[in-house]
Amino acid sequence: MKQDIVNQTHKALLKNKKTVAVAESCTGGLASALLTQISGSSKYFILGTVTYSNKSKEAILGVPASLIAEKGAVSYEVALKMAQNVRKITKTDFGLSITGIAGPTGGTAKKPVGTVFIAVAGRNRNICRKFCLKGSRNTVRQNSALKALELLNSQLLTPS
Amino acid sequence: MKQDIVNQTHKALLKNKKTVAVAESCTGGLASALLTQISGSSKYFILGTVTYSNKSKEAILGVPASLIAEKGAVSYEVALKMAQNVRKITKTDFGLSITGIAGPTGGTAKKPVGTVFIAVAGRNRNICRKFCLKGSRNTVRQNSALKALELLNSQLLTPS
Repeated sequence: MKQDIVNQTHKALLKNKKTVAVAESCTGGLASALLTQISGSSKYFILGTVTYSNKSKEAILGVPASLIAEKGAVSYEVALKMAQNVRKITKTDFGLSITGIAGPTGGTAKKPVGTVFIAVAGRNRNICRKFCLKGSRNTVRQNSALKALELLNSQLLTPS
Repeated sequence: MKQDIVNQTHKALLKNKKTVAVAESCTGGLASALLTQISGSSKYFILGTVTYSNKSKEAILGVPASLIAEKGAVSYEVALKMAQNVRKITKTDFGLSITGIAGPTGGTAKKPVGTVFIAVAGRNRNICRKFCLKGSRNTVRQNSALKALELLNSQLLTPS
């Protein structure tokens, strides 16, 4: 299952000659690690960033501090901005972002542990999905990275 | 064994109140993923970058193109510069870098598959080690990430 998604995404990026850059928060590098798992990934994988702190989201990705203050680092708006900006910085076809609460701490009533926003920014379309994942910190992180590849894959299969 | 190194590094960073930023190439995000595996890692983990392409090593980390051309992306000098520059950009206590040939392709007679340079840049000391790792692409990547944590850990235990 996991390997299927990795293989599919690898093939789809190569076949469509698309490039990707990644901005991760809660997954801490796991999505980039999946995207570079197969030899030949240097053809499409341009940059991964693990912008774990709010400061690095601002300094490296240019996410406005005011947006983080208003909406929260784990939000639809910040996920979208992370994806759009990492795409812009790297001039790639797709920007992929993940921001969420892996736990076990950090959850709130409105945003419990397992709340994850994943966004894909493309040339003509930006999408963002909210996921409510269950399980341990490790499970939430692993599954978030897989969901990110699935979302990227879905955009690779959709005519732009 | 793996979990021991992750736990030790986590505890040493917290105990010594040190921060770290990472610049990865062949490990593709695995070192950052290990460093953020345990809850509370946001206290020390400031930024991870997966600068897989030479272009991103230049554009994001400011590694001179001339240095990459002269020494190769997988070299003592480039590993050191990646670590020094990611530290400088983030103003962290430590910069950690990994650049190597995970394979199965990309090896040469001088730098066979499994050649990996790992560097730690600190306030008063920079170190770089060359490793010749065996095994599959996955094994080389996983072991490189663990070696990186071990090298960082050794610096945390050494009085500066």
